[in-house]
Amino acid sequence: MVERLTRFINEITPADESAKNAAKARLESLIKPPGSLGFLEDIAVKLAGVTGGVKNNPQKKCVLVMCSDNGVVGEGVAAAPQAITLAMAANFVKGVTGVAVLAKSGGADIRVYDVGINSDEIIPGVFDCKIRKSTGNIKLGAAMSRKEAVQAILIGINAVTAAKDDGYELLGVGEMGIGNTTTTTAILSAVTDMPAAEITGEGAGLTPQALANKIAVIDAAVTVNRPDKHDPLDLISKLGGFDIAAMTGAFIGAAYHRLPVVADGYISIASAYLAVMFNAKIKDYLFLSHVSEEPGYAHYMRLLGMEAPLNLNMRLGEGSGCPLMFDVIRSACAVMNDMATFGEALADTGEAYLKGLK
Amino acid sequence: MVERLTRFINEITPADESAKNAAKARLESLIKPPGSLGFLEDIAVKLAGVTGGVKNNPQKKCVLVMCSDNGVVGEGVAAAPQAITLAMAANFVKGVTGVAVLAKSGGADIRVYDVGINSDEIIPGVFDCKIRKSTGNIKLGAAMSRKEAVQAILIGINAVTAAKDDGYELLGVGEMGIGNTTTTTAILSAVTDMPAAEITGEGAGLTPQALANKIAVIDAAVTVNRPDKHDPLDLISKLGGFDIAAMTGAFIGAAYHRLPVVADGYISIASAYLAVMFNAKIKDYLFLSHVSEEPGYAHYMRLLGMEAPLNLNMRLGEGSGCPLMFDVIRSACAVMNDMATFGEALADTGEAYLKGLK
Repeated sequence: MVERLTRFINEITPADESAKNAAKARLESLIKPPGSLGFLEDIAVKLAGVTGGVKNNPQKKCVLVMCSDNGVVGEGVAAAPQAITLAMAANFVKGVTGVAVLAKSGGADIRVYDVGINSDEIIPGVFDCKIRKSTGNIKLGAAMSRKEAVQAILIGINAVTAAKDDGYELLGVGEMGIGNTTTTTAILSAVTDMPAAEITGEGAGLTPQALANKIAVIDAAVTVNRPDKHDPLDLISKLGGFDIAAMTGAFIGAAYHRLPVVADGYISIASAYLAVMFNAKIKDYLFLSHVSEEPGYAHYMRLLGMEAPLNLNMRLGEGSGCPLMFDVIRSACAVMNDMATFGEALADTGEAYLKGLK
Repeated sequence: MVERLTRFINEITPADESAKNAAKARLESLIKPPGSLGFLEDIAVKLAGVTGGVKNNPQKKCVLVMCSDNGVVGEGVAAAPQAITLAMAANFVKGVTGVAVLAKSGGADIRVYDVGINSDEIIPGVFDCKIRKSTGNIKLGAAMSRKEAVQAILIGINAVTAAKDDGYELLGVGEMGIGNTTTTTAILSAVTDMPAAEITGEGAGLTPQALANKIAVIDAAVTVNRPDKHDPLDLISKLGGFDIAAMTGAFIGAAYHRLPVVADGYISIASAYLAVMFNAKIKDYLFLSHVSEEPGYAHYMRLLGMEAPLNLNMRLGEGSGCPLMFDVIRSACAVMNDMATFGEALADTGEAYLKGLK
């Protein structure tokens, strides 16, 4: 199974530099001051690198939502009861949660995966990929075995393979799992050697006392597990969750299949970072969406060396930021595909414009 | 004519506070941690204040693009030749410029107004509201008379009246006018008493020498004209342009007609600020879109006490940021209209969730 994962990771291909250069050249020829559409231009160039074509227009879009429970909730780190993970998974497929209504509004689908919800219930419409009912309590030991981590990562890769087979051209990655800002912050603390007090947020909402407890639990989890900070599989298995593992797999799978993939908020960017630790080429396929309110989000941006364009003060998770970014990507494609060139539009004044700007 | 403008300004009504409160109450009841959708929730509440209804879903959207020329281009402040204003106005209605393709991509229309292009040409598809061919050179004196400023503002108000009559429910405000970052920065310098060197950007692209000249021209324009910094009509007529005046009118008109209105970049936010100087209630109808790359943009945000949610490093103008914000507003409406309440979705676990979060 590890061999299978290694193969996926090693077979990831780099961005198509010649398509990117052709995309840049076309952008320079369009009727606007060079670079004046900023990040929209960057997106259009990056997409060309992903697909190998200058003009893109992904129509079929999907947010993959990985749901699982975390043993660490036994320590009182979360505001909401664990049963919410199950209840919300059911609500995703009913179409009534944040990510569900935002995806529908933007013309995207969602696919929901149970990778470790703490329940025996089979939820109609949710892909049943349960590894087991909840991870272990990271304050006391590893969240999962390395074998389970590999298994969960492969679930994420397989989810992308299925999405690709079904014609999806643009993916987002989200989650549901009460307690997962704790696991995500534990990984960040291990990677950066920063104490939890400097990077821990209040998740879905905590009292000051509960926040102090969350910080102590995270510090204890890192101390007890002593993960190798350069080994993403060690970080995931000791401090992560099945959601984080499967999401990491989704980012790996998207790069393997050469599909553009959008990260949502805090849990999602952590998974994207873990994927990039496995293979730095994954960055070529990755688009950030919004700057999460969770304080650790900015640290993951710094680790990735990337910036998110949307500042919406959101902290819902679920993949809710992805459909908003799908709109921005659609707009970037319109710029590349539909604007006229100076030659087409301006005849002789165009030449003067270009000369004036260069 | 001044009386007519005064009447519009004085008859602007405030936001509907009871609709805003009902909108807030509904957001608190939806299946998410309170406030976790951040700016999307703020938008949904603000929209309720504009329309008086909790659920909104503006379908018919339009960007109003005000085009005019500026006499100050004779001082060499702009990278592009003046003829580009005319050429681009024609390209807007052909649907091939930045704002045109972005609007189309997002399901919005554009309406283009000639309020002072330096040409006798009548452009098919462009509303001919020319006041005269270009303003005066602000380095030497006033851009226009107070009477002309009122006339141009009324053109903007009338454009909104026509849009309202045609069923538009959401508006954006953009412009085209070579030299208009110079006029916009002159107004900012007059309002803030900041020297041009601290707030002047390179517009569509300038060499360091040309930038130094632009700064000197702006300082000279403020010194020569000595506008009353508390009188928006004085600021517009002495340092502005017909584009800025008509855009100011569009923001006034939107508030008068109780329509939500989106500002684009640097020229647009300056016009929004001038409108708010006329009547502070206009802020209740105003939505910012993206943080322009022009250094003065952030100063206008500070003056307004508002923030723009999109960080796209754009500096094109034309209204190009408005369609991107229309998408965000559509998403905010989906949250308000389509998410389930705790009562609808979670039954007894919902109660526990709410209790855990409060």
